[in-house]
Amino acid sequence: MKIAIVGSGAIGLYYGALLQLSGQEVAFLMRSDLEVAAQKGIRVVRKDDELLLDEVRCHGATAEIGVCDLVIVAMKATGNESLAKLLPPLVGEGTKLLTLQNGLGNDRLLAELFPKNQVFGGLCFVCLNRTAPAVVENFMPGSVSIGPRVEADHEEAEAIAQVFREAGVKTRCEENLQQVQWKKLVWNIPFNGLAIAAGGVTTDVIVGSPQLCEEARGLMLEVIAVARALGFEFGDGFDDYQIKITRPMEGYRPSSMIDFVEGRPVEVEAIWGEPLRQAKAAGVPTPKLEMLYALLKQICR
Amino acid sequence: MKIAIVGSGAIGLYYGALLQLSGQEVAFLMRSDLEVAAQKGIRVVRKDDELLLDEVRCHGATAEIGVCDLVIVAMKATGNESLAKLLPPLVGEGTKLLTLQNGLGNDRLLAELFPKNQVFGGLCFVCLNRTAPAVVENFMPGSVSIGPRVEADHEEAEAIAQVFREAGVKTRCEENLQQVQWKKLVWNIPFNGLAIAAGGVTTDVIVGSPQLCEEARGLMLEVIAVARALGFEFGDGFDDYQIKITRPMEGYRPSSMIDFVEGRPVEVEAIWGEPLRQAKAAGVPTPKLEMLYALLKQICR
Repeated sequence: MKIAIVGSGAIGLYYGALLQLSGQEVAFLMRSDLEVAAQKGIRVVRKDDELLLDEVRCHGATAEIGVCDLVIVAMKATGNESLAKLLPPLVGEGTKLLTLQNGLGNDRLLAELFPKNQVFGGLCFVCLNRTAPAVVENFMPGSVSIGPRVEADHEEAEAIAQVFREAGVKTRCEENLQQVQWKKLVWNIPFNGLAIAAGGVTTDVIVGSPQLCEEARGLMLEVIAVARALGFEFGDGFDDYQIKITRPMEGYRPSSMIDFVEGRPVEVEAIWGEPLRQAKAAGVPTPKLEMLYALLKQICR
Repeated sequence: MKIAIVGSGAIGLYYGALLQLSGQEVAFLMRSDLEVAAQKGIRVVRKDDELLLDEVRCHGATAEIGVCDLVIVAMKATGNESLAKLLPPLVGEGTKLLTLQNGLGNDRLLAELFPKNQVFGGLCFVCLNRTAPAVVENFMPGSVSIGPRVEADHEEAEAIAQVFREAGVKTRCEENLQQVQWKKLVWNIPFNGLAIAAGGVTTDVIVGSPQLCEEARGLMLEVIAVARALGFEFGDGFDDYQIKITRPMEGYRPSSMIDFVEGRPVEVEAIWGEPLRQAKAAGVPTPKLEMLYALLKQICR
């Protein structure tokens, strides 16, 4: 299967490397990491081992890559406006598109750009940090949840999930992509947001402060209430579970916080703005999310 | 009348200078400004004029000052634990104590330290910045509201108000000090707080951003709801009025924001912590105040 990875940050480097190591033909669209990846390959540092992908098909332009079977969009949502120019050379009649981006609105954009192609979304529940050009560090194996934008495409979603599984990634296939997106927002909205708004702190500071931990929980309960109002199911105690899985992450730096402290654009609209707009449209009060969004919009200008 | 000014930041310098210029015998307790004030006096820069107090009775220790008729506490509430040591030399049998400090809990502390003396509180609705040692800048004349901690002392409160009026300060005398403290918190909680949490911004940024301005209003409505639950009266539209008076302040830097950016302690407990605790005790939900307090507690460590 010929696969293009568009955007080679932590997510793109990690899953692209695993897919190629499992035998797929993977082409990486790169900017800042291109030279290092071409010369030294991509290094994946994990808790118990280290992988080296020494022959990397890396490109600076999508025209060099050509039409693929699967296009994986792994860039920050803040760069979404470049996709209309970047993607067309990769997309033919049967090309499938998979966005692994954070937040809401990304799969809708791909469907608008390529209305005749099948669009899928994947949510990565994983701790990854790109620690140097073409080097990605993995803190916990985690999992990926893949779902079709349109429920009728669930068989193709299952086929993509199988490709990920063959690359050693624990992958679930979901009927409802939106439900999984909201599930991930229950973590990303509080932890990515508070990590920035509290001055650039790691997750242990949030769960370790009684006040900040209660704010994280309060934000989660608001997000869950919105998702439920939109028709998605959440079991009780999902907030407790999120806090429980965050404790062992120790000094983890949420990706948006890294973007913020390193002066890169933060995905404020995809992660906080769009969910807030959907909350307002659904008439669900989200006072804490409103405040966090207002602060982040100012702080991350 | 012999008056001691304890704490010579913007508030202490400004009102101390005006009181002395009106003929009162004023002694300033100073630390960092002592040398400049002794040599060059205190300068008050106002929109249309400039005042110079060239003979300043400034002291580094309260024992040098001795017993006064009126002790005005004008230091940051973050230094309150030093008052038990600082104040006794100033306080005799008939000495009255007036706190001009921000937030809640300051008059209670004075009453606990000197249970036999009369305690008053004053709220300064004014824009002042200490721009250099012994130099204070005034942006708008504003007013002071003085009230007795115990309602029975209202005649003495009126007498103190009269002393301020004779110094050219527009001064109201209030029956209920707590009501005025909550009134001032309706401004201080949102504007001092958001100015810090949004990254160190001035008031024009807050009222100029649709999102931040709505958060300021949301915080005000929470504070008003708490104050009403505690029995204090607020007319409708008080939130609109607060936003209206803030617009002409333009690039005003709220005092807590200056403390924050200059690395000084911020009065987090007096302005946000104590009101939040009273809200919880009264059973009034304040989701936005909770989030702001949690963030400030972390940011202003």
